[in-house]
Amino acid sequence: MAVSPLAPERIAELPPVAGVRLAAAQCGIRYRERSDLMVAVLDAGTTIAGVLTRSQTPGAPVDWCRQCLPGGAARAIIANAGNANVFTGRAGRAACEATAAAAAAALGCDPRTVFIASTGVIGEFLDAQKIVAALPGALAATVPGAWRGAAEAIMTTDTFPKLATATAKIGDVPVTVNGIAKGSGMIAPDMATMLAFLFTDAAIPAPVLQALLKPAVERSFNCITVDGDTSTSDTALLAATGAAGNAPPATAGAPELRSFKRALEKVAIDLAQQIVKDGEGAEKFVTIEVTGAASARAARRIALAVGNSPLVKTALAAGDANWGRIVGAVGKAGEKADRDRLAIRVGGIIIAAEGGPVPGYDETPVASHMKGRDISIAIDLGIGKGRARVWTCDLTHRYIDINGSYRS
Amino acid sequence: MAVSPLAPERIAELPPVAGVRLAAAQCGIRYRERSDLMVAVLDAGTTIAGVLTRSQTPGAPVDWCRQCLPGGAARAIIANAGNANVFTGRAGRAACEATAAAAAAALGCDPRTVFIASTGVIGEFLDAQKIVAALPGALAATVPGAWRGAAEAIMTTDTFPKLATATAKIGDVPVTVNGIAKGSGMIAPDMATMLAFLFTDAAIPAPVLQALLKPAVERSFNCITVDGDTSTSDTALLAATGAAGNAPPATAGAPELRSFKRALEKVAIDLAQQIVKDGEGAEKFVTIEVTGAASARAARRIALAVGNSPLVKTALAAGDANWGRIVGAVGKAGEKADRDRLAIRVGGIIIAAEGGPVPGYDETPVASHMKGRDISIAIDLGIGKGRARVWTCDLTHRYIDINGSYRS
Repeated sequence: MAVSPLAPERIAELPPVAGVRLAAAQCGIRYRERSDLMVAVLDAGTTIAGVLTRSQTPGAPVDWCRQCLPGGAARAIIANAGNANVFTGRAGRAACEATAAAAAAALGCDPRTVFIASTGVIGEFLDAQKIVAALPGALAATVPGAWRGAAEAIMTTDTFPKLATATAKIGDVPVTVNGIAKGSGMIAPDMATMLAFLFTDAAIPAPVLQALLKPAVERSFNCITVDGDTSTSDTALLAATGAAGNAPPATAGAPELRSFKRALEKVAIDLAQQIVKDGEGAEKFVTIEVTGAASARAARRIALAVGNSPLVKTALAAGDANWGRIVGAVGKAGEKADRDRLAIRVGGIIIAAEGGPVPGYDETPVASHMKGRDISIAIDLGIGKGRARVWTCDLTHRYIDINGSYRS
Repeated sequence: MAVSPLAPERIAELPPVAGVRLAAAQCGIRYRERSDLMVAVLDAGTTIAGVLTRSQTPGAPVDWCRQCLPGGAARAIIANAGNANVFTGRAGRAACEATAAAAAAALGCDPRTVFIASTGVIGEFLDAQKIVAALPGALAATVPGAWRGAAEAIMTTDTFPKLATATAKIGDVPVTVNGIAKGSGMIAPDMATMLAFLFTDAAIPAPVLQALLKPAVERSFNCITVDGDTSTSDTALLAATGAAGNAPPATAGAPELRSFKRALEKVAIDLAQQIVKDGEGAEKFVTIEVTGAASARAARRIALAVGNSPLVKTALAAGDANWGRIVGAVGKAGEKADRDRLAIRVGGIIIAAEGGPVPGYDETPVASHMKGRDISIAIDLGIGKGRARVWTCDLTHRYIDINGSYRS
């Protein structure tokens, strides 16, 4: 499959994170002649936080992670591509248990410190023995710097691996935040589940780590949409090895965490945007900024209504500055709006305000902006202070091709 | 444009409804060489009910109808295609006032008894003078039986006109219910607004008529989705001329209305299904039945989540029995579900139950059902008594073609 036209010019190169060792392996779950298993081994003492899908039909690995998270400790993350282990009943649970038991035996740790994620087709039984058989070799092969291989091993319909890194200081101690993710509709339940694994060498207690991860996810992964189809398997994990040796902060509000928060959000937003840029069939990257809404929640719902509208997305694909569809999507969002205060800008150019097109509106510069790869839509509701920003992509013929042919 | 493969074999022929006269005319708003104006003239004493879009950015005609409906009386319905008169500010309101004033002067009635609907592009000024100029000729040309011409005059991307009829008795008095509608995404804000006009010769006071129309719309037009994009202009009107001479019922619960309710619902469902069958790019007609949900509202939200899922719709287009995507859509609906009680049937064949695929599941008969034009999906939640039925269509390349090229 051709690489997305929105792919970054260069794949980021990530430095090691002390306390993290990685490997990729082939266990032949679905794909042939490519790696499909990622193993991250974490030093003893590593804390962990996680944000999991709100789907009411979550996969077995999501249930597993949800049970292990309160322990706050992690020694390994094991993720496979090709089979999501969703809607597989008791057998799905058993597959998680077998995987965790095998890794725990090899590492000499509690199985509840082994976190698991799976991505791929829904409703097919996952043969955990393939993973168990590949584990000893994979664990023996782990090295500190294998980020790229790890990111490649979790790809499904992704056309490029997604990596990001940033540095920060906690007190005077420099720390690193690395992350890898896969898409490629965030949001495509049986094939393109969103997985993101973030790692830092900072020393941060698990409850504080959780309090840091949640808002970072809110402002990054929860602000992207490819097709509005929330996954059964969305998983974001953040592991902190503590190897940097900083004094552990007592709360997420501690002033010395300011730089770390910025770095964490930077890595999360970078990965989230890479997922949109590799959205199935995506040819345009679209930023939707909503201001002046009744609340931040209202702003987000309106931005998502625009970002998920098939009419807006097909107009974007065609490079058509069809702003009437944006008005329609704002109106359907179910949030307060006042037609006569609404203002719409595309590419920074005001198109409509005060209940109608602006006098003398000239579509030429907007049409030229719409022909580009990077589209900006700004909507001001003019009724409050709520604001939100969402990233999405266009809806093209390739989306239909990819999703009509994935299983067969 | 080629006629939808799901179009009915024959367009329904409608009998006259005493007290209703119809005409179509060309006023050249957008289309050339086709009618684009529908006029229905109603006898004095006609009552009216209406259900209008809940969009927060409604068109000027929707605002106009909303203001006139409390009067409960109608002498004319005037609808144009090609321009939706939405987001056109003060000029949009003035266009409605000019149209109503011209019709009222010609008919010698109150302008507030002239109901108006417009469908087409959003955000372009509607030149009401074109309608005003065409009105005298159109009013003079009205005849009792011109249903087909009226249905054709309101088409936009529709590929066939939509008509339906049914008869009923109120007491011993036979009455007729006729309806015309246009789609063709219900639900495509700037081009395929849903309009439905229903007419009966029954004598029914306006408050009773409104109480009858609302649940009929709930079970018909509000149960269809093409793309989830609620329109700025959705309008359903029901006019009752009283010419049949039945004793007017005092309440919607009156037992003599039972047969009328059935007829009204039959016509509304028939038109609603025709709209789906002419959904933009539609190649399959899909019935989604949800049972066993926590409530009727929950059932409807789950059915719509499945019916609006781009992943389900692209799988349907490809004839792929990818039931995992149905599980995913159920999970994302935001309503209570229990993975281990969920059961999914396609074409009547059980696929998944008790948390996983049924033992020995054979995809062959399901795959053969999926190749047809008429697809049935049944979802049982197994946790309550809530049920709902929704109709939708698949998502094909033609949807993208139609919506990428509509304006240009």
